[in-house]
Amino acid sequence: MAVYTQVSDDELTSFIASYEVGALLSYKGIAEGVENTNYLVHTDKGPYLLTLYEKRVAAQDLPFFLGLMEHLAMAGINCPTPVHDARGRVLRTLAGKPAALVTFLEGVWIRRPQARHCAALGQAMASLHLAGRSFAHTRANALGVGGWRPLFQRFRSRADDIAPGLAAMIEEELDHLEAGWPGQLPQGIIHADLFPDNAFFLGDQLSGLIDFYFACKDALAYDVAIALNAWCFESDHAFNLTKGQALLKGYQGVRALEPAERQALPLLARGAALRFLLTRAYDWLHTDRDALVNRKDPLEYLRRLQFHRRIQTASEYGLESSA
Amino acid sequence: MAVYTQVSDDELTSFIASYEVGALLSYKGIAEGVENTNYLVHTDKGPYLLTLYEKRVAAQDLPFFLGLMEHLAMAGINCPTPVHDARGRVLRTLAGKPAALVTFLEGVWIRRPQARHCAALGQAMASLHLAGRSFAHTRANALGVGGWRPLFQRFRSRADDIAPGLAAMIEEELDHLEAGWPGQLPQGIIHADLFPDNAFFLGDQLSGLIDFYFACKDALAYDVAIALNAWCFESDHAFNLTKGQALLKGYQGVRALEPAERQALPLLARGAALRFLLTRAYDWLHTDRDALVNRKDPLEYLRRLQFHRRIQTASEYGLESSA
Repeated sequence: MAVYTQVSDDELTSFIASYEVGALLSYKGIAEGVENTNYLVHTDKGPYLLTLYEKRVAAQDLPFFLGLMEHLAMAGINCPTPVHDARGRVLRTLAGKPAALVTFLEGVWIRRPQARHCAALGQAMASLHLAGRSFAHTRANALGVGGWRPLFQRFRSRADDIAPGLAAMIEEELDHLEAGWPGQLPQGIIHADLFPDNAFFLGDQLSGLIDFYFACKDALAYDVAIALNAWCFESDHAFNLTKGQALLKGYQGVRALEPAERQALPLLARGAALRFLLTRAYDWLHTDRDALVNRKDPLEYLRRLQFHRRIQTASEYGLESSA
Repeated sequence: MAVYTQVSDDELTSFIASYEVGALLSYKGIAEGVENTNYLVHTDKGPYLLTLYEKRVAAQDLPFFLGLMEHLAMAGINCPTPVHDARGRVLRTLAGKPAALVTFLEGVWIRRPQARHCAALGQAMASLHLAGRSFAHTRANALGVGGWRPLFQRFRSRADDIAPGLAAMIEEELDHLEAGWPGQLPQGIIHADLFPDNAFFLGDQLSGLIDFYFACKDALAYDVAIALNAWCFESDHAFNLTKGQALLKGYQGVRALEPAERQALPLLARGAALRFLLTRAYDWLHTDRDALVNRKDPLEYLRRLQFHRRIQTASEYGLESSA
C-alpha cells in the first residue's frame, strides 16, 4: 500500500536498458501489496511490473517464487512472468533492494465476487495445483499448522485486548487442530493466499492469478479451504452455500478431491480461519493505528472459525457427494 | 502521494462505459501528486489517468483547469487532455468526488536536470505562455504577492520554531516585495508550479507538462522566476549559471522578455522564493511528522531567497543582454 523505495529516472533507465524490453516511457509507484514496492512501468514494448522486495520477504525465498511464476506461466497458467535480462538473470538489485521485472497482468479484482467468479477461481486454483506438480523446487509453509502456535506465543499476552477470552479460545483451537490435523493428504504447490485481490478478471473471465509470495508446499485441499474462507462469506459473515458449491464444482471440474480430502475439509477450513485470525491479530497489535496501512479486522476470522466449528461434513460447504 | 479514495471495480466499470475509451483492462492507484487521488487506467484503447479531486482543490476552479488543459492541447502543447464522455462532459462525479479522465502522458521526470533539460523547459514554458493568450477564462493567483501576507499571518507565531529569526525576516521581505512589486508586466496564463516533477522527458526530449492545478493569470515573467528557483539550483543550494543561461535562452528562443520583465527578474525571483518558503513553512508546521507525505524543507527556499537578495541584474541569472 506504499512506495517504500524511491527509484530515480537514471537508475531505472540503466536498469531497463539491461533487458530487451525497449525504451522506458514512464513508471509510477503503485499502491499495491502491503509487503513490497511496486512500479507499473511502460516501455515501448508494453507494460511491466517492477517489484522491489522489502524486508518482509525473505531474500532466500525469491528464487523459489520467481522460478514458480515462470514454471506456471510455461505450463499455461495466466500469471505474471519474470523477464530475463540480457544475461539471463531474473533476480537483480535496484536501489539497494532485490528486484525483479515481470510481465504486467491486465485485469481487475472483484470486490464483491458472485458465484460465477467463485467457480472461475476454483477452476484456476485446480489448474494451478496440477501445473505445480512438475515444479522441481519446494518451500515449507511457515504459516502451516506447525507455525501457528509459535506465532500465537508472540502476542498471547495481549490477545484479550482484541476480544475478551480470545487467548483461551485460540489455545483450545490449537490443541484441537494440532491433534487432528491430517498428515496424509495429497501435497503440492499451493498459492496459500488466494484472496479476491489476487485473482484478476476481465469482465467475467478470470484473466490470471497474482502474488505468489506465500506459495509453498502443503496439502492441496488446504488451499481450497483458504479459498472457501476468502471467497464464500458475505459481508454479514454468513457463509454463502451457492458460492461454496460454485467454487468446489469449479475446482472438481479440473481436479477431483479424494475421499480423504473431502473428509478433512471442515477441519482444514477451521485451520485456515485460525491462520488468518492469527496473522491479522498479530498485525492488529503491531501496526501503528495511524499508519496508512489498512489493518484488517481479525474478528472477521474469529466469526468464520466459529462457523466452521459447527460443520460436520464437507457437503455443508456445498461439496457434491461423489458420484 | 496517497490513494485517498478507493474506487471499486463495479463503480469504475460503469464510469468507464460512459466514455468511448473501450473496455476497462486494469486500474492502479498511483503515488503521484500530494493533493488528489490518481489511478492509472488501462483500457483496450490505451492508458488514461483518472483523477479524483480531494478537498484541497476548490471544486469551482475545476472547469478552469480542465478547460485550460484542453485549450493548451488544442494549441499544440503536450499535456494531459480531458476526455469527453458520451454526453460531452469532462467533469464528472465518482465515489462521491469530482473526477476527470485525462489522456496519460508518457515520460519520466528528471531528478537531476542538466542544462539541456533547463533549455527544453524554458522553450516549453514560453510556448505555454503563447498558447495561453487565446484562452478566454481567467483565475486569480491565490498564491500571488497579495496572498503571501495573509498566509504568513496563519503561522507567524510559530515561524521561529522552524528557524530563529524567520518571522522577522519574512516580515521584512514582505514589506520590501509588496512595496516594489511591478504591476505593469505582461500578464497571461502561467503554470505557477513548473518544478522538475511536472515536466516529463523521453530521453532528452521534453514530452510534455503536467499538473495545471496552480495555473492562473499572473505576470508571465513570474513563471520564469519560479522556474529559475526550481530548476537552476544545485543540491548544495548554489545557483548554476549555466542552467540559468540555458533556461532563459530556451525561453527567449520562443518569446523574448520585454525590458521591464528583464529588469524585474531579480525581484520576481525573490518573490517566487518567498512564495515557496511560505507554503513549505506552513505545511511543515501543519503536517503530522509521522504522516507518509513528504514534507519539503522550507529552509531550501530561505537559502534561495538570500541568494536573490544579493542579485543586482538579471544578467546574474544568465540572461543575455538584449541585442
